[in-house]
Amino acid sequence: MPKTVYLNGAYLPADEAQVSVFDRGLLFADAIYEVCGVIDGKLIDFDGHMRRLDRSMCEMQMTCPLSHDQILQVMRELVARDAVEEGLVYMQFTRGSSGDRDFLPTPGTSPTIFGFAQPKSDAFRAEIEHGIHMISAPDERWKRRDIKTVGLLASVFAKMTAQSRGGQEALLHEDGIVTEGAATSFFMIKNDVLITRPLSNAILHGCTRAALMEMLDQGDLRMEEREFTLKEAIAADEAFLTGASTYVCPVLSIDGNRLGVGGPGPVTRDLQRRYLNVARRLAV
Amino acid sequence: MPKTVYLNGAYLPADEAQVSVFDRGLLFADAIYEVCGVIDGKLIDFDGHMRRLDRSMCEMQMTCPLSHDQILQVMRELVARDAVEEGLVYMQFTRGSSGDRDFLPTPGTSPTIFGFAQPKSDAFRAEIEHGIHMISAPDERWKRRDIKTVGLLASVFAKMTAQSRGGQEALLHEDGIVTEGAATSFFMIKNDVLITRPLSNAILHGCTRAALMEMLDQGDLRMEEREFTLKEAIAADEAFLTGASTYVCPVLSIDGNRLGVGGPGPVTRDLQRRYLNVARRLAV
Repeated sequence: MPKTVYLNGAYLPADEAQVSVFDRGLLFADAIYEVCGVIDGKLIDFDGHMRRLDRSMCEMQMTCPLSHDQILQVMRELVARDAVEEGLVYMQFTRGSSGDRDFLPTPGTSPTIFGFAQPKSDAFRAEIEHGIHMISAPDERWKRRDIKTVGLLASVFAKMTAQSRGGQEALLHEDGIVTEGAATSFFMIKNDVLITRPLSNAILHGCTRAALMEMLDQGDLRMEEREFTLKEAIAADEAFLTGASTYVCPVLSIDGNRLGVGGPGPVTRDLQRRYLNVARRLAV
Repeated sequence: MPKTVYLNGAYLPADEAQVSVFDRGLLFADAIYEVCGVIDGKLIDFDGHMRRLDRSMCEMQMTCPLSHDQILQVMRELVARDAVEEGLVYMQFTRGSSGDRDFLPTPGTSPTIFGFAQPKSDAFRAEIEHGIHMISAPDERWKRRDIKTVGLLASVFAKMTAQSRGGQEALLHEDGIVTEGAATSFFMIKNDVLITRPLSNAILHGCTRAALMEMLDQGDLRMEEREFTLKEAIAADEAFLTGASTYVCPVLSIDGNRLGVGGPGPVTRDLQRRYLNVARRLAV
């Protein structure tokens, strides 16, 4: 468990960091968040996460009281205080608290901001190194998955379903079409083409997804952004997930069907290695 | 603002009632709630709300540590301490806090339970007496609207849209079909038939909706549970909303189109009066 929590300007021991029961984050899930990966004690792709945070703030009609530089300072302080070498920093921004419970926010309410750093567990590190098993589940999330909100119950349900069937991540699908992982972006490789779903309100605009695709922009691997079915995903030669603290994680099977040779494929392994180099280079 | 908050067994001054930033309610909107209407200082349809709470708990795979009798005691205590004659009691049940942020809950975590009573404002009282204006908005909520979770951001957005266009409530629709109000059930009357959408995972199973329909079961008014379009709703003779603290509230217009004669219709007025009698009778 994290030792230090940043809360509205103060650094507190984790067990003292509390917010009002009237906070709109708690009453209405009226809050957004960001997770930055940490490697070598540095923040991966901080600018990418700030671009997405700005976008979420705009969609929420919220104004962030902290500048990017101030957020960078807070994140670095959390990483330093908890001495996290590899892991993540989480920061949440709620619309604040306004007394009486009312769906409509009171204008001028100050956001509640809190954050903490969390080291990567050995189990998670092994999982993303050696690969994970996915279980398909219907995508029951709301229609604005492009906003990184804390309304994550549908993903929690999907992860619980995956766990109950021996998987570590859920592969979400809607009307037969794959959307993404419950907390990750999904890529597959078929006949040497890298395929992933195009951006829209149906999926989160993954920062690691974007960084990986930028890395590949001038490379040899052909990329296609298009919709594809669950059946196609199961028939892929290789597949992998991306995420802020997941980097590039091989997918070994979907619903018990082993992909390709059954272990992490050669393209995935290559991208995993190359992305890690980029992540290190992007870290600040 | 409420004066007293119940939190995990204690009654606290409202400004001291806080929960950990690691609570799953705050990190994942992993929480459910109930709102009981209060009239004459008593709880309306308590049993109905407890049936729905049990159902939500079951869908969440959570176990409620409080019995219905204990919840009744808490709700009555909150109403008494804040001397609420007419208003509501709110109670939330989160999946609790389990240290590290992880989508998968730690088995055996104790739920966080909090609640408060809130009097009805004069403005809200006038609104539900004289009627409100609705603005249509696409239903962007998740697919399990039958579970009363705190993941309410889509409803907040819809209410903000309604407010920006001069309405007090949003009329949600999906693929051209009306689902319900952002925080209420929706009924319309056309050619002396009362029409509302049938229960499914697409709408909340409203307690007031159920109580009203039970009240009408042996009456003269013909009822139809069927899907209908936004266009049909706009062409209705009358329309009204139901909710735990809304009771029966006349709808005056949808997207600026006045319904029927423009004021609360005669059937709505009759049902409003009769439901209030039932609510008083059901109050404990």
